[in-house]
Amino acid sequence: MKRILILGGGFGGVYAARTLEKLLKAELNRSEVELGLVSRDNYMVFQPMLPEVISGSIGIVDTITPIRRLCPRTNLYTRIIESIDLKRKRVVAAAGFGSQQLYLEYDHLVIALGNVTSFAGQPGLAEHALPFKYLGDALVLRNHAIHVLEEADIERDPEMRKSLLTFVVAGGGFSGVEAVAELNDFVRAAAKSFKNIMPEQIRVVLLHAGGVILPELPESLGRFAQDLLMKRGVEIRFDTRLQGATADAALLASGERIATRTLVSTVPSGPNPLVAALQCQKDRGRIVADAHLELPDYPGVWAVGDCAHIIDSRTGQASPPTAQHATREARCVAENIVASLRGTAKRRFAFKALGKMGALGHRSAVAEVFGVKLSGFVAWWLWRTIYLMKLPGLDRKIRVAVDWTLDLILPADIVQLRTDRSVGIRREHFEPGEVIFEEGGHGDWLYIVVDGEVEVLKRVPGASAMSLRRLGPGECFGEIALLGDHVRTATTRSVTAVNLLAVDREAFEALFSTLPPLRHFFERLIEERMALGERLTQADGTPSAAHRARAAARESASFR
Amino acid sequence: MKRILILGGGFGGVYAARTLEKLLKAELNRSEVELGLVSRDNYMVFQPMLPEVISGSIGIVDTITPIRRLCPRTNLYTRIIESIDLKRKRVVAAAGFGSQQLYLEYDHLVIALGNVTSFAGQPGLAEHALPFKYLGDALVLRNHAIHVLEEADIERDPEMRKSLLTFVVAGGGFSGVEAVAELNDFVRAAAKSFKNIMPEQIRVVLLHAGGVILPELPESLGRFAQDLLMKRGVEIRFDTRLQGATADAALLASGERIATRTLVSTVPSGPNPLVAALQCQKDRGRIVADAHLELPDYPGVWAVGDCAHIIDSRTGQASPPTAQHATREARCVAENIVASLRGTAKRRFAFKALGKMGALGHRSAVAEVFGVKLSGFVAWWLWRTIYLMKLPGLDRKIRVAVDWTLDLILPADIVQLRTDRSVGIRREHFEPGEVIFEEGGHGDWLYIVVDGEVEVLKRVPGASAMSLRRLGPGECFGEIALLGDHVRTATTRSVTAVNLLAVDREAFEALFSTLPPLRHFFERLIEERMALGERLTQADGTPSAAHRARAAARESASFR
Repeated sequence: MKRILILGGGFGGVYAARTLEKLLKAELNRSEVELGLVSRDNYMVFQPMLPEVISGSIGIVDTITPIRRLCPRTNLYTRIIESIDLKRKRVVAAAGFGSQQLYLEYDHLVIALGNVTSFAGQPGLAEHALPFKYLGDALVLRNHAIHVLEEADIERDPEMRKSLLTFVVAGGGFSGVEAVAELNDFVRAAAKSFKNIMPEQIRVVLLHAGGVILPELPESLGRFAQDLLMKRGVEIRFDTRLQGATADAALLASGERIATRTLVSTVPSGPNPLVAALQCQKDRGRIVADAHLELPDYPGVWAVGDCAHIIDSRTGQASPPTAQHATREARCVAENIVASLRGTAKRRFAFKALGKMGALGHRSAVAEVFGVKLSGFVAWWLWRTIYLMKLPGLDRKIRVAVDWTLDLILPADIVQLRTDRSVGIRREHFEPGEVIFEEGGHGDWLYIVVDGEVEVLKRVPGASAMSLRRLGPGECFGEIALLGDHVRTATTRSVTAVNLLAVDREAFEALFSTLPPLRHFFERLIEERMALGERLTQADGTPSAAHRARAAARESASFR
Repeated sequence: MKRILILGGGFGGVYAARTLEKLLKAELNRSEVELGLVSRDNYMVFQPMLPEVISGSIGIVDTITPIRRLCPRTNLYTRIIESIDLKRKRVVAAAGFGSQQLYLEYDHLVIALGNVTSFAGQPGLAEHALPFKYLGDALVLRNHAIHVLEEADIERDPEMRKSLLTFVVAGGGFSGVEAVAELNDFVRAAAKSFKNIMPEQIRVVLLHAGGVILPELPESLGRFAQDLLMKRGVEIRFDTRLQGATADAALLASGERIATRTLVSTVPSGPNPLVAALQCQKDRGRIVADAHLELPDYPGVWAVGDCAHIIDSRTGQASPPTAQHATREARCVAENIVASLRGTAKRRFAFKALGKMGALGHRSAVAEVFGVKLSGFVAWWLWRTIYLMKLPGLDRKIRVAVDWTLDLILPADIVQLRTDRSVGIRREHFEPGEVIFEEGGHGDWLYIVVDGEVEVLKRVPGASAMSLRRLGPGECFGEIALLGDHVRTATTRSVTAVNLLAVDREAFEALFSTLPPLRHFFERLIEERMALGERLTQADGTPSAAHRARAAARESASFR
C-alpha cells in the first residue's frame, strides 16, 4: 500500500487531496493507496471572503468549509505538526487528548503549509498589532472593534476617547485595502447604535508605503480604489511605513505617533517555522520545487502554494502566492503523484493567471480580468459571482447567498463575542519614556522586565516626581497592587525600549500560593519595598498608599 | 436629575430598562432622568434557543440580541461589576482599556444579576465538567464535541476511543434534557462525516437523580420525553447522582465511573458572588424583596429575576427562576420606580405562569400551557412559534426563521471554531490511584501540587514499578519533560485525591527565563532529580530517559 500524506489544509492541500481522490478512485477502493491530510483546523478558510466576517455581512462559519466534506475519502488528522523528517520519511503530529504523539509515515509527501504572520524586526507589533490572516484574526478584530466602541461610548477623557475611535490599518495591498474597506464600513454603521459617538469622531487610517494603493493592479484601478475609500472617510497616508507599536500608538518611520487602540497589520508574512526547519533547497525561505513540483533532492516530496518557489515552465517567472495558483499547482502535483505511482510521464507546471480582484465594500470593487479593467458596481457583481461559484460546497454557497441577501435588508450586527478568555500571561512592549502605570491607578498585573530598563517614580507634594529606583532584566514590579486593594503605589516609566512579561492576578495568585520559592521571594520583596514606602511616608507626613497596602497585606494571612 | 442604574443584562435587567424607557419618555427628553445598565456582555442571550447553538441549527449570534438595540436610550456600560455599596449608593465597575475604574452613583438601583454556575462541593467538576449556561458555554461544548469526534476518528487505542465517543450530561431538568437532546442529535448527525466512526459506537448518557425526567412538568410528559430520547439512542440513568469528575471520567455517587472526555453539568447554580457579598436580608442566597420588589432595608433598591426571593402576592408562593417571571417582575419594578419618582401608589407583584415547554430536538417537544398537556410535533410547533414571537428584535426573528428553514435542507455543520486559546495555567483534579502521566509519554505541562499527595514511580525491567518519592503541597513535578526532549522520565500517580496546578510549556518558559528565583529553584531541583535518575541508571545498566534529558538540559544553555 502506498501512503500519500498532505501537510496543510489551505487551497493547496485540500485541492491536492480532492484531485487525488478523483484520480485514485479505483486504488482507494482496493485499499492500494491511503490518503492522509494533516491540518491544524478541521476546515478550509475561503480567504477572499474573510474581510466580510469583520462586518458580519457573512456569517462567521459560512466562509469556511469542513475539510471532511471536501475530501471524504482522505484521513484527516486535525493536529498541529511538530516536525517533518525528510530522511526518515516521517511526520510527527502533536499529542491530542492523551499524551501520545502521532507518527505518520509516507511514500509521497505534499508540503502545502503556506506562510505565517511574522512581526519580526518591528518592535511592539507582535505584542500590540492585530494580524489579519486566519478566521480567528477576523473574529478577534471584529470583537475588538466593538469593544473599543463600547468603551468610547462611556469614556470621559477626551484623549483616551480619541485613541479609542482611531483605527489604523497598515499595508495598502489587497488584504490591507479589503480589510480597511470592511472595517471602515463596519465601525461607521455600528457607531449608529452608540448614543454618545458621533460619526465625525471616527478616524480610519490606511498606511501605505507607496504612492498609489493596490500595487498588484494597474495604477488607474488603484487610483479609483483610493478615491472611493477617501470619499467614504478613510484617511490614506501615502509613502508611510509602520515602524513599531505600543499598547496605545502606531509608530511611523517618520517618528510620528498615531494614538490608537486598534492597529491592524497585514504586511508581514514569513516562512512557516516547519518549512524554515527543513533541510532542503530554498529561495528566500520558500521550498525550491522543480518543473514537476517535486523537490530536487527528495523524490516523492512535493511542494505547492505559498510555501513553494515554483518557476512557471512557460513564462520562466516565479508563481505568485495566490489561491488561483495554489489550486492549479495542487492539481498538477496530484497528477504527477499518480504518474509516479503508475510509471507514466509527469507534467510540467504552467498557468496564466485569469485576473485579479479586490472588494471595496458597499457594492464596489476593482478587477482586472483577462486584461480588461473593471471598477465599481460591475466589478463588485463579478467579484460576488465568481467567488460564490468558487466557494466549495453547495451548502456554503446557499448560506453565503442567504447572508448576502439578509445583509441588504438587516442592520449591522454589533454583538461582541469574546473569543479571548483570561490569558494569564502576556507580553508587552514600551518605547522609551512611556508610562507603564500611574500612581493611584488600578492594577491587576504584575510585570517582569525581560529586557530594557524601567524607572519607579513617587509623587512628592509640591515638587516633581522622585525617582525611587531603576529596574532591569529579571526584576519585577507592580506586585503590591496585586495584594489587598488594587491601588498602584508608584508610577513606572520605561527608560529605554522595554519588553515586559505581564502576569495577571489570577495566574499570580495561583503560582504564588502554590510555589514556596516564589512566595518567599515575593514576601521578601514586598517587605523591602513597603519599608521604603513607609520611610517616604514619614518624610512627607501623610499616610501613603504603601501603608494601606501593607496593612492589607498583613490581613491577607500569608497571601493565601 | 435622578439616576436609575440597572445591574445585569439578562431578561430582568433588559426588560426593566425597556419599560423604564417607555414610561419615562418625557423625563428622558427633558434630561430629568438618566438610565444606566451595567452588563458583562453587550448582548442579551435568549436562553431558550441556546441548546440549538450546540447543533448549529441556529447561527451562533442569532440567539443573542445587542442590548443597545433593545434599549437605545439607556447608557450601556459593558464592564464587569466589582462591588456594590448600598450604604454609599455606589457601584464600582472594573477598568476598561485604561486603568481607571468606573464609579456609578444612583438614586434607584435594580439588581438583576441572576445566578452563576457553581461546582462547589463536587470535586473535579470545576476543572473538568463543561457548564451550560452562557452563550460561550454552548460554543465551547459544540467545539469540544467536534474535537472529540476528530480525535476518535484517528485514535487507535480502543479504550481511549470509547471514552472519546462517550458523552455524559448530568441533570434531568429542562436545561439538561434540552442539552442532551441537541447534543445527541448533533453528534449522531456529525459522525456521518467521519469515515472511521460507526453510529453504534457513540454513547450519550443522561444522569438523572429522580425516577422520571423533567420533574418541572407532569409525569406523563416526562415519560413521553424519556421514551423519545431513549428511542433516539440516549441512555438514561435514573436515580443516579454525579459525585465528581476527573479528566477522563464521570464519577457517580454509587462509586461507578463512566469513562468519558465530555461531561456536561447543568445542575449546580449558586448565588452571584456580588449578591453573596451584599449586606442585606437573604433567603437561601437570594435577595429578599418586599411585595413591591423593593429591599426592606434599602428604599430605592430593587431586585428582580433569579437573584431575588419574591413572594407572589396572590399565591403566597416564591416566584420560580424563569424568564417569564423575570420579565414580569422587571415591568413591575419599572412601574414602581416611576411611582416612587412621581409619588403615586406602587403595585404589588403577582403573576401566574402561562405554561412550560421543553424542546426535544428533531421536531418534537413537550409543553404544558394553561394546564393543557401537549407533546410531539404540536408541542414543537408551539415552541418554535412562541419563542420566535418572544425573541426580541425583528432582525433576529428574520435571521432565526431563515436559520430554521436552511436547517431543514442543509447538512449539520462540523466546523470546529476554537474559542479557547493557549491558557498558560489551568487546574486539574485526580481521584486516588490515578495516573497523572506515564513514563515515556509526551509532556507539555509542569504540575504543582495544591493539595493531596502524589507518588513518582520508575519502571524496573522485570519487576513491578519502584516508588521513587512522594510529593505534597507546594512541590512540583514534570519539569524535566519541559526541557529538551518532551519525554516523561517517570510515571506519576495520585495517592490521595489531588488538586494540581498545571503550567504549560510557554508560560513555564516565559516565567522561568525571566524570574531568577524561579530559575534557581528549578535548576537545583532538576539537578537533584537527574542525579537520582542517573544512580538508577547505573543500577540497572541501561541508559535511562533521565540521562537523555540531562544531556538535553545541558545543551539548552542555562534554560534560555
